[in-house]
This record gives sequence, C-alpha cells and structure tokens, in this order.
Amino acid sequence: MRVLGIDCGSQITGFGIIDSDEQRHRLVISGAIRLQPRKCFSEKLLDIHREVDQLITTYGPQIVAVEDQFYLSNFKSVLKLGQVKGAVILTAARAGIPIVEYSPLEIKSAVTGYGRAEKSQVQTMVEKLLRLAAPPEPLDASDALALAICHIHTSATQIRMQKAVLAATSRHGGDSC
Amino acid sequence: MRVLGIDCGSQITGFGIIDSDEQRHRLVISGAIRLQPRKCFSEKLLDIHREVDQLITTYGPQIVAVEDQFYLSNFKSVLKLGQVKGAVILTAARAGIPIVEYSPLEIKSAVTGYGRAEKSQVQTMVEKLLRLAAPPEPLDASDALALAICHIHTSATQIRMQKAVLAATSRHGGDSC
Repeated sequence: MRVLGIDCGSQITGFGIIDSDEQRHRLVISGAIRLQPRKCFSEKLLDIHREVDQLITTYGPQIVAVEDQFYLSNFKSVLKLGQVKGAVILTAARAGIPIVEYSPLEIKSAVTGYGRAEKSQVQTMVEKLLRLAAPPEPLDASDALALAICHIHTSATQIRMQKAVLAATSRHGGDSC
Repeated sequence: MRVLGIDCGSQITGFGIIDSDEQRHRLVISGAIRLQPRKCFSEKLLDIHREVDQLITTYGPQIVAVEDQFYLSNFKSVLKLGQVKGAVILTAARAGIPIVEYSPLEIKSAVTGYGRAEKSQVQTMVEKLLRLAAPPEPLDASDALALAICHIHTSATQIRMQKAVLAATSRHGGDSC
C-alpha cells in the first residue's frame, strides 16, 4: 500500500509518502510546500494544486489522507485552511484517487498510542516507525507522515477485524451481511 | 465586460453571468449547482469543479467574483464553505481567470445602496437592474448575480476615479506615478 499524507496549511503544507506491507513501513518522500507570501491567494492555491498533482503523477499513491481539523483560533483561519484543503481534495479527486480524513485524536492515537501527544512526540514516533536516521523535518512533513501511518494502521486493523468476523461466521456457518 | 459571480455553498452554489458596457447590464445565464447529499465530499467538489469549468469554457467570462464571507454559525460550516470556495477559486485559476472577492456589506451596498439589506431586497434590485420579467431564482443565483453587479459597479467607479485623477494631473502638469 502506498499512502500520501497531506498536512494542509495556509502558509506551509506538509506531505509524506509511505509504502507499507502492513509489517514494515518505508519512507518514499516527504517535504513541505511553502507558499510565497507575496502571491495572491488564487496563485497560492494553484501552486499547491500543481505540487500535489506532480506528487501524484510521479509517485502514484493509492490513497490520500488529510486531517479532519476545524478548531482554529478564528473563522478567517478556518476559511483559509478550508480553501487549501478544498484545492488538495479536488486535486486528488481529479486524479481519481480516494481521500480519507482522520481527526488529530485519531492520528496521535495511531502513531503514539496517546491522543493528546505533543507534535514533538509524534515526530519522534514517526522517526522510529520509519527507522529514519533523524526526525523528519519540518514538523509539517512529520505531521503528513503521521497521517499516512494513521491510515496504514487503521486500514490494517479494519482488515484484521474483517478477517476475524469472516473466520467466526464461517466457523458458525453464519452470514456476515 | 463579462463577469461570472459565484455564491459558494456546501449544498447549493449559485452562479450568474452578466455582460455590461458600464451603462447597461445584460443577463447571460444564471442558476444553481445542487450537490447530491449522498455523494462523498470529494465527489461533490469534483462536481462543482466540472460545472464551473464548463461555465468558463462555454461563456468565457473575463473575471470571477466570489463572496468574502467567513462568519457562519460554527467552524465546521466555515471549513466546508472554505473547501467549496477553494475548489471554485482553483478552477478559475487553472483557467487563467482573475478572481475578485467582495464582502456581504460591499455587495449589498453596491446593489441596493444599503449594506444591511435583506436577501429579498437584493433579489428585487437584481431583477430591476437586469430588467428581468421575474426575480432570479433560486436566491443563490440572485446572490451570484449581485456579486457580478457589485464587481461591475466597483470597477466602473475605479475607472471613473482613475480618469478624474488623470484629468486633474494633466491640467496641472503633474505626474500620477
């Protein structure tokens, strides 16, 4: 499974691609798209669109994971974040790639086992899980990789649960539908 | 000047295209994109993108006007609106069309002369200014037309002001730069 995690932001948008066979995860690429402050907002959205589109074309992820966050300091910040997220989701949708969303609580729980972990703790766990020589930088890239790991762990758990239900129903001759 | 106004919404997005020679406005087309509730959000964004892209390709507007609104009941609503707006802005930016934003106060003032006018008053004034036989429906389409009228009035005022400054500086032998 190849997952592209994207941590949307109105100034910096982190990204991270991970390959996983459920047992081991491997970092493919990570980084951040830094928007030029002097550009008008529509040009910034176009830059994000082009960068994400390029990542999708070059690395062919099977799924895109984004954060389902909407608690920020004010409405204006949320609206800007929403516009960036809209551009990212549209880019993935145009490429025919499914999009999944995870809350900050789900992401932190999946990566560190604790839903209220600090960003630095998430970064340390991402480094360990991907067996990196140093913490992934910047934090936006680390958050994007955490998103990808969250999706890999969540879907692996779902697959295990489906298998368990299937085994149980086949033992009891029942029907899972 | 041909202007496309878009009134973004997470369920219904209104649109309206107006031609204007500064003296007279003419309705080209107006309507609403209704999103299917059962579709997942990324598919809804893709639908909006396709519809707006089609409008741009078919009618070739020179500019797109959207509303700069961010006061809604809660963060979740603002985030959804932001995502729709992000998809609309990205669609226009991909087509190389400039985007302008106006606040609700600016729109209502430009159309009715009163910044706190009701939606129905805006609708009546849009009907009069475009010399329509009936009020434009639905209200989302009327709001989109109001956005386009707001841009036409605002840019006409700016042009008049620029001309006045130019005339004054040429009379006094000054330099406007």
